[in-house]
Amino acid sequence: MIKTGIIGSTGYAGQELVRLLLGHPQAEIVWYGSRSYIDQRYADVYRNMFRLVDARCLDDNMKELAKEADVVFTATPQGLCASLVNEEILSETKIVDLSADFRIKDVGVYEKWYGISHKSPEFIPEAVYGLCEINREEIKGARLVANPGCYTTCSILTLYPLVKEGLVDPDTIIIDAKSGTSGAGRGAKLPNLFCEVNESIKPYGVTSHRHTPEIEEQLGYAAGKEILINFTPHLVPMNRGILATAYGNLRPGVTGEQVQAAYEKQYGEEYFIRLLEQGVYPETRWVEGSNFVDIGYKIDERTHRIVAMGAIDNLVKGAAGQAVQNMNLLFGLPEQTGLQQAPLFP
Amino acid sequence: MIKTGIIGSTGYAGQELVRLLLGHPQAEIVWYGSRSYIDQRYADVYRNMFRLVDARCLDDNMKELAKEADVVFTATPQGLCASLVNEEILSETKIVDLSADFRIKDVGVYEKWYGISHKSPEFIPEAVYGLCEINREEIKGARLVANPGCYTTCSILTLYPLVKEGLVDPDTIIIDAKSGTSGAGRGAKLPNLFCEVNESIKPYGVTSHRHTPEIEEQLGYAAGKEILINFTPHLVPMNRGILATAYGNLRPGVTGEQVQAAYEKQYGEEYFIRLLEQGVYPETRWVEGSNFVDIGYKIDERTHRIVAMGAIDNLVKGAAGQAVQNMNLLFGLPEQTGLQQAPLFP
Amino acid sequence: MIKTGIIGSTGYAGQELVRLLLGHPQAEIVWYGSRSYIDQRYADVYRNMFRLVDARCLDDNMKELAKEADVVFTATPQGLCASLVNEEILSETKIVDLSADFRIKDVGVYEKWYGISHKSPEFIPEAVYGLCEINREEIKGARLVANPGCYTTCSILTLYPLVKEGLVDPDTIIIDAKSGTSGAGRGAKLPNLFCEVNESIKPYGVTSHRHTPEIEEQLGYAAGKEILINFTPHLVPMNRGILATAYGNLRPGVTGEQVQAAYEKQYGEEYFIRLLEQGVYPETRWVEGSNFVDIGYKIDERTHRIVAMGAIDNLVKGAAGQAVQNMNLLFGLPEQTGLQQAPLFP
Amino acid sequence: MIKTGIIGSTGYAGQELVRLLLGHPQAEIVWYGSRSYIDQRYADVYRNMFRLVDARCLDDNMKELAKEADVVFTATPQGLCASLVNEEILSETKIVDLSADFRIKDVGVYEKWYGISHKSPEFIPEAVYGLCEINREEIKGARLVANPGCYTTCSILTLYPLVKEGLVDPDTIIIDAKSGTSGAGRGAKLPNLFCEVNESIKPYGVTSHRHTPEIEEQLGYAAGKEILINFTPHLVPMNRGILATAYGNLRPGVTGEQVQAAYEKQYGEEYFIRLLEQGVYPETRWVEGSNFVDIGYKIDERTHRIVAMGAIDNLVKGAAGQAVQNMNLLFGLPEQTGLQQAPLFP
Repeated sequence: MIKTGIIGSTGYAGQELVRLLLGHPQAEIVWYGSRSYIDQRYADVYRNMFRLVDARCLDDNMKELAKEADVVFTATPQGLCASLVNEEILSETKIVDLSADFRIKDVGVYEKWYGISHKSPEFIPEAVYGLCEINREEIKGARLVANPGCYTTCSILTLYPLVKEGLVDPDTIIIDAKSGTSGAGRGAKLPNLFCEVNESIKPYGVTSHRHTPEIEEQLGYAAGKEILINFTPHLVPMNRGILATAYGNLRPGVTGEQVQAAYEKQYGEEYFIRLLEQGVYPETRWVEGSNFVDIGYKIDERTHRIVAMGAIDNLVKGAAGQAVQNMNLLFGLPEQTGLQQAPLFP
Repeated sequence: MIKTGIIGSTGYAGQELVRLLLGHPQAEIVWYGSRSYIDQRYADVYRNMFRLVDARCLDDNMKELAKEADVVFTATPQGLCASLVNEEILSETKIVDLSADFRIKDVGVYEKWYGISHKSPEFIPEAVYGLCEINREEIKGARLVANPGCYTTCSILTLYPLVKEGLVDPDTIIIDAKSGTSGAGRGAKLPNLFCEVNESIKPYGVTSHRHTPEIEEQLGYAAGKEILINFTPHLVPMNRGILATAYGNLRPGVTGEQVQAAYEKQYGEEYFIRLLEQGVYPETRWVEGSNFVDIGYKIDERTHRIVAMGAIDNLVKGAAGQAVQNMNLLFGLPEQTGLQQAPLFP
Repeated sequence: MIKTGIIGSTGYAGQELVRLLLGHPQAEIVWYGSRSYIDQRYADVYRNMFRLVDARCLDDNMKELAKEADVVFTATPQGLCASLVNEEILSETKIVDLSADFRIKDVGVYEKWYGISHKSPEFIPEAVYGLCEINREEIKGARLVANPGCYTTCSILTLYPLVKEGLVDPDTIIIDAKSGTSGAGRGAKLPNLFCEVNESIKPYGVTSHRHTPEIEEQLGYAAGKEILINFTPHLVPMNRGILATAYGNLRPGVTGEQVQAAYEKQYGEEYFIRLLEQGVYPETRWVEGSNFVDIGYKIDERTHRIVAMGAIDNLVKGAAGQAVQNMNLLFGLPEQTGLQQAPLFP
Repeated sequence: MIKTGIIGSTGYAGQELVRLLLGHPQAEIVWYGSRSYIDQRYADVYRNMFRLVDARCLDDNMKELAKEADVVFTATPQGLCASLVNEEILSETKIVDLSADFRIKDVGVYEKWYGISHKSPEFIPEAVYGLCEINREEIKGARLVANPGCYTTCSILTLYPLVKEGLVDPDTIIIDAKSGTSGAGRGAKLPNLFCEVNESIKPYGVTSHRHTPEIEEQLGYAAGKEILINFTPHLVPMNRGILATAYGNLRPGVTGEQVQAAYEKQYGEEYFIRLLEQGVYPETRWVEGSNFVDIGYKIDERTHRIVAMGAIDNLVKGAAGQAVQNMNLLFGLPEQTGLQQAPLFP
C-alpha cells in the first residue's frame, strides 16, 4: 500500500483526494493535514466521511510527514508548497503539488502573475508538469510533480493536437471558459454565497487570470514558440465542472480530415480522453465525478475558424483525479487505478 | 460473474443501476432493456456512459431475458413487472422489481392507490419486501424481491426503531418528506422542466401519495397493528436526495435513553445506516451518490414529541443501490459489494 | 412624500426595502444606513441599483435619522433596535422594526430564546405586532411596529382561521417549514456558501428555532390560551420563498365546509392573501417578488387531520413588503400602494 | 389606454409581456391568445397571475384581434406571424413581432437559417428592426416592428459602438454567449428537464445558431459592409439572463480613450444601457427582472484585443421588455413607461 499524506485536506480539492484515495485499492491516507481544523475530526468537517474516516486533522508538518508518507499531496494556497519543500524532503518522499508553485518554469512570470515571491525556485527546473497525457514519461521518474490547474488542464488538452500539429494559428487562440463554483474554494467569502452565485453567470479575472501564463507556456511548447492567448473564465451556478470553449483560426488549407487525424493521433489511445463523435459537444454533466475529459469540435466553414470544446470535472481531472493519476504513474501502477468510476448523472 | 438484465434501463433509476453494476466486481450487464430506445446505443441516451457501455438497447422480452440473466431488475412503470412475471420466468431467474407491483400484500390496497388492476396477484404472497436492514434473512431465499420505494425506504428506516420498540404512538406519525427531482423520472413533462422546478418548492400528492400505504403496511408490521399516518412529499430544486422529517408523540414516560437504545439496538451493526451523533441532523448532500442512510433525531421536551429525520440518495438507497444490495443478498455476496463509494460532495 | 430611513440597508431585507421603496409612488429614501459599508456607494454594494441609487451608506445615527425621516425601518440584527429606541426618538418618527426585538410581549421569553437581554423593555407593551391582516387597526395608530418574522408570517397566516374558529386542536399543530437561502442573510459564513447549500436540503434549529415562541404567542391569542407547537425549518437551495406545511387534528365533527368558511371569513376580502381553489396547493415560485400569501389546504378523511399550506416570498411579505404595508397603514395610504407588482416567473 | 393583444401569451416571453403590461399605466390586455390552452383560464396556466388575470385564453384569430387591439404582440414560433399578417391587418393595428419573421432583410438568408419558407416576404422591407437604442426614430412611425432576438439584443448592443466607430476589425469578432433556460421555451422536451439542465453547462448550435445572421446583418450596417462572425451559445442552469462575452481585435493604434469615448457617445444618454465603470463587468443577477443592459469591457494590452461583455434579462430586454419599449415608441409614450422596476436580487 502506498502511504499518502495530504496537506490541505479540508479544501474542496483536498476532500476530493480523500474520496478518491479511500476508493483506491493500493493507497491509504496516513495524514489529513489542515491548518484550519487541527485536532478536529475530519468527518466533522466533511460529514459525508462519517464512519469512513476516523482520523483527526493534523498540522502541516512536512518534515514529519515526509518520513511517514510515500507521497505527499499539497492542496494548499499558492506559496505554501514552495516554502515547505527542500532537498531533505524530496529525498524522503514524492510530492504532487496541486498549487501553482512549480507549474511555471519562468519564476519571473510566476511572481508577476501571482504577486508573491517564490521561496524555492531552485526546484522549479526538476519539477515535472503533471499533465499525464502529455508528459507521461517524464512524470514516472519525477520527485516533484506540478499538478496542473483546472482551467489549464481543460484548455490545454482541448487545444493541444491543433497546436502541436500546426493546424491553428496559435496567436488567434481565444479560450472562453466556464467553471462550477467549487473551483472558488471553501473560503467563507461573500461572492461565493449561495444567493450571490445562484441564478447568475459572470466573467471574472478578465485578461488577468493566473491560469493564462500556464496555458501559454504549455501550448507554447506544443507550438515551438512563445504564444499569447486570451483566456476568460466565468462562474457558473453549479457545483462542479469546467467547460472550455476555444476558438482559433485554422491555417489556410487545413481540412476537417487533418483536424480529426490530429485528435486521433494524440488521443486515440488515451483512456481518460473521450473524443466525441462529429456533431456531439461536451457537457459538464457527462463527466461529473469522473476523471474523463470530453472533447469535441466544429469547424466553421464560413470563417475558417475551429471551435474546440472540452469538459472536465474540475475537482477530479482538474485537481484530485489528475493528482491520483500522477501518483499512479509515480509508483508504476496502471494509470486508471482507482479512477474508473462512471460519471454520476444526474 | 452474476449476469444481470435491466428492464427499463433508460430511466434515471435504470441508469443508476448501470452505473453501480459497472463498478460491481462480481456482476455484468447482459441486457439493457428500454422500450423507448430500442436499437439505440445506450451511450447515446446517457453520454456519461460513452466508452463505458457499448451495448444497444433491447426490448423487454422477459422470456428470453430470463434465460440469459441470473437476475432481472425491472425499473419500469407500475404494472409492467406484474404483467411479465410467471412461474416459468421465476424458475429461471430471480427478479428484483423496482416498481410497486409486489410491495403491498393486500392487492385491494394496491389497486385502490395505484388505480390499476394487478395482473399476477398470485405472486404477491411469495414476494419479499426488499428493505434489507429489516428483512435480510427472508430476502436471501427469495425468487421475487419487491424493492422498496424511495420515500418509503427513507421514512420507514427513520421511524422503524421507534415503532418497533413501542416508543411512539404510531397513530400520531406525520412524515413530511422532501425529494430531489430525479424522483419524478425522465419523462418530458412540463412540471419537470428546469424553469418550473428551479427556484421553487412545492407539496404534491397531499394525503394521496402512493407511498403512504407502503409505509403504513411496513410500520404496521413493526407496531403489530394497522396504522394510519400522514405523509406529504415535496419537490425540491436539486437532482438527488430525499429528506424525511417525521414527527410522533412519544408515549408517556419514554426517555431519551430509551430512544437512543432503540436506534442502537436496531442499527448498531448496520453498515449502510449511519446514526448521527446528538445534535447532528441529516442533510442530503452528505449521502449523495452513496447507499448510506443518515438518521438523527431530537426530542422536544416541551411537547414530548420526537422529530426523527433521515436522508438518502433517492436513486441509490432509494432505488438502484438497494436493488444491488438485494442482489448481493440473493447471491450470497457480502452486502456492501460494489456499494462502498464514498458520498460525492460537493 | 414620506421620508424613509433604513438602518441595515445592505442586508438582503434592507436591499429589498430599497427596491420596493424606489417603486413606491409616495415614499423616498433619505438614509441608507449600513454599519458595514459606511461611506461606500450603495450601488457598489448592490450593483442592481447602479444608476438607480446615487447615495452613499451612512452610519446608524438614530438620533439624527429620527429628525430627517418620517419613518425608520430597522433591518438589523436582534438587539440593535431595542438599544436605539427611546421616547425622544419615538416622538419624532415612527419605527418599523424588522428584527425580533418588539415581537414578543413576554420579555422573559424573548431573552430565553434569543439569549440576549432586552435594552428597552419599557416599549414592548406599546409595540404593535405588524401582521397587517390580523392587526390592521392597531397598526394604524402605532408609533412602533414589530414587523413579523418570515417563517412566522407564513405559518400564522396559514393556520390563523383554523385556530381562531376552533377547528383544530392547537396542541396538535406541527409546522414543517422550508425556506430559500436569502433568509440566512448576507453574512460570509461557510454554511451559506453556494457549494454547501446547492444540491441539498437540511433541517436546522430543530425544536429550538426562535420563530417558535412568536408563532405560539400569536396563535395563542387566536386560540384564547397558551399553546405549544412543533416548528421545524429547513434550508432549500433557492434564493427566495418560504413554504409552510402545517398539520393539525381537526376537532371531532369538523367538516370541510366549516374549514372553507373559516378561511373565507378571515381572508375573503384580503388583497394579499390568495385562497387557492380546492386541490391547488401553494408553490413558492408563484409568489416570488410579490407581497402575496398563497394558502391552500387538504383534509385527510382517513386521519381527520388537516394539512394547511402557505407560501410567501420571505423577503417581501416575510420582511420588506410587509414593512411597506405597515408603513402604508401608518400613513393612511391604501395598503397596496407600491406593492402591486405581479410575481416574477420563472 | 392602449389596447393590446398577445398571440402566444402562454410561452415564457408571452407571460412576461403579461407581467409587464399589467404594470403598465397606459396599456391594458384585451386578448390572451394561446393555441395550446384555448378556453382555459390564464391564471390556471400561470398561477402567479391568480387574482390578477381573470381572462381565458383565446385562439389566434388575427383578423378579429386586429379590430380589437391597438397593437398586437406575436410571441409565437417562427413562421406564424408571417402567415397571419396582411395589408388589412396592418391597416387596422400595429404589430410587434417577437419571432424572427421580419428581422432579416434578405429573405433567402431567413429561409436558409430557419429552414422554412417565408409566407409574406412583401412586408419585410417595411418592417423596422426594433432595437430601440439604435433604430428609435424609424420605430416611431412603423406599422410592423421586428422585435430583436435575445442573444442578438445583447450581442449587438455590446459591440455596436466598437463596430460603428471602426475600432475593431469586424471580421475578428467572436461572441461566446450564455443563456438561462427560459430562453429554451416552455415546451415539454427532455433536454429542458430540470435534471438534464441542472448542474451542467453545454454549448449548442455551434456555428449554426439562428441568431448569427441577425447579428451579422445589424453589425454589418454599423460596419458599412457585410461581416461574418462566430457566435456560440451555451445553456446555463439558471432561469433568466444572458451574458455575451465578445472578443475582437482592436485596429492598430486604437486607444482605451477612443473605446471609452465610443461607448459614451453611443450610450451616454440611454436610460436602459448602463455603462459599467472601469474594472466592473456585467453579471446577469444585476439585471434580472429589468430592462437594463449592463455593458463593460477590458482591453488586453498583451494581445491588443478587446473583451466586451453585456448582460440582459433575456425575457425582458431580450423579449417582452423591449417589445413594450417598442410599443411605447409606437404610441409616443416616454420610452421607460412601465419599465422602471429595479432589478430583483437575489
